[in-house]
Amino acid sequence: MHKVILDSDPGVDDALALYYLIRHPDIDLLGVTTVFGNASVGITTRNARFLLKAWGHDAPVHPGAAGPLTLDMPPEAYPVHIHGENGLGGYPVSDEAVDQPESAAQFLIDQVRANPGQVRILAVGRMTNLARALQLAPDIAGLVADVVIMGGAFRVPGNVTPAAEANIWGDPLAADIVFGAPWRVTAIPLDLTTRTFMTRGMLARLAAEGGPGMQLIADLSQDYVGFYAQSGYDGMLVHDCTAAVYLTDPGLFDLAQGEVRVLSQGIALGLTLMNPVTRHGPLAAWDGRPRQFAAVDGQPDAILSHIARTCVGS
Amino acid sequence: MHKVILDSDPGVDDALALYYLIRHPDIDLLGVTTVFGNASVGITTRNARFLLKAWGHDAPVHPGAAGPLTLDMPPEAYPVHIHGENGLGGYPVSDEAVDQPESAAQFLIDQVRANPGQVRILAVGRMTNLARALQLAPDIAGLVADVVIMGGAFRVPGNVTPAAEANIWGDPLAADIVFGAPWRVTAIPLDLTTRTFMTRGMLARLAAEGGPGMQLIADLSQDYVGFYAQSGYDGMLVHDCTAAVYLTDPGLFDLAQGEVRVLSQGIALGLTLMNPVTRHGPLAAWDGRPRQFAAVDGQPDAILSHIARTCVGS
Repeated sequence: MHKVILDSDPGVDDALALYYLIRHPDIDLLGVTTVFGNASVGITTRNARFLLKAWGHDAPVHPGAAGPLTLDMPPEAYPVHIHGENGLGGYPVSDEAVDQPESAAQFLIDQVRANPGQVRILAVGRMTNLARALQLAPDIAGLVADVVIMGGAFRVPGNVTPAAEANIWGDPLAADIVFGAPWRVTAIPLDLTTRTFMTRGMLARLAAEGGPGMQLIADLSQDYVGFYAQSGYDGMLVHDCTAAVYLTDPGLFDLAQGEVRVLSQGIALGLTLMNPVTRHGPLAAWDGRPRQFAAVDGQPDAILSHIARTCVGS
Repeated sequence: MHKVILDSDPGVDDALALYYLIRHPDIDLLGVTTVFGNASVGITTRNARFLLKAWGHDAPVHPGAAGPLTLDMPPEAYPVHIHGENGLGGYPVSDEAVDQPESAAQFLIDQVRANPGQVRILAVGRMTNLARALQLAPDIAGLVADVVIMGGAFRVPGNVTPAAEANIWGDPLAADIVFGAPWRVTAIPLDLTTRTFMTRGMLARLAAEGGPGMQLIADLSQDYVGFYAQSGYDGMLVHDCTAAVYLTDPGLFDLAQGEVRVLSQGIALGLTLMNPVTRHGPLAAWDGRPRQFAAVDGQPDAILSHIARTCVGS
């Protein structure tokens, strides 16, 4: 069993990733830590709890950062045109958003120390909680199994700007800290996630075959599908769940390896830049950084099939 | 006939580009403007004059910028390990380096105005002279035929840093000005030039068949070939001449189109970032920029054959 902590900002595609994790027979979800991003951390925390309750899972939810570590950030508006005002596509969420003391970083530290070499952190939002945990307890870098993130755009343009993917753009300094720590980071970036496209038809079929749990996913995804329809697509990208698949099926992902830096200022704020191991030449600001991994290619159809089997199969 | 001005910093592969231009039956070389880069502008000016004299060509040589427009640049050493202390691989250059008033930008302006719609600028060094000409005379943007540059790294790592190619890195602000002006810019970047590799055997064959003009190229290229040998390659990249081939044979180049920004500060100084026309989403700092072109792919073997035919054929 893979012991997994999900760090997340639900978020519509986050909801699918969470459902995938609790459905997967080889994954033991230790808990969920939340972060600002797709909505405020009060809302994403409320949403995580709502979803777990709806699916009958008792994993603890620990609220995390309400804003980025990065200084001098441009003003940010939550992406309500993508995830809705309530972060779940306008789906009626019964509970109220809660304002609670931050406990995400400490939960990450405690779980990693309690399960040395075993915890896998799947981070699919801003990486603020992970960076804070590293700052509070650098020893956890040597104690986790690995870190898998949804984020970055290595050989393709970004989605928030031509340079930057949203999760990195939202706290680039935190991402630079995470890529620079001596733990193994595997990024599942836009290079691959913009090709893991679940059609509206596939989503409807999964809802029909998957029972009420999957129906909830389909219901709260409708506005998100509508967002893609504005660009002429009939379906939705499943960014976060693609990263979740990496946990158990790394063979479906083609990884590039190299030192990674993240730009935390200027017009390309949030750009992820890898120095590939195959490159000759000077390293400059990449010198001394650990080699990390990024899935610059992979098998989108097989990943989607795996998601379908996990979310619908008995 | 294509009326061409070469803006250059000879430089070993610059020398091949210059030879190619004066050999090409469809190219009328109006003049050469020089710039710092592979060596000081005094040396690159001297080298351009030496080469033209050796090949019996009377194109004028106008010295240009001695340093970048970009402020707060990191200290730069000339790449003597690649192009030699004298910029031509240690080949004995008879003339002395000269210290003359800058006239490159004014020559560019005068020629463009005198030949409206006809002049093609091939810039294979730092883009400082072009940026200065634009600042002095913005009208030239509407009067040139087009601008072709060797520079940038769009979907591949850089050569000076993991982010930046040398010509852009050496004056990123100038490059940003050039990409932002309302003229057509076609960049021939590392994406393609790192695949146009002339083997040592091919170079020797061209020298044997091409007479003294081509023999001079082979002689001054030996240390440059030695530089590549240190990385395990048996031959040399012909960056600048690849860009020259674009002038007459654009069909050998596959172009991406989009707005381009160049980073002129931070750890990714000199990075070229295109917003492809195929991308959906916010533009941020790319908004309002003209769409330019970059040869992200092409036919290296056909380009090399074309260089060989031009430099050796009668």
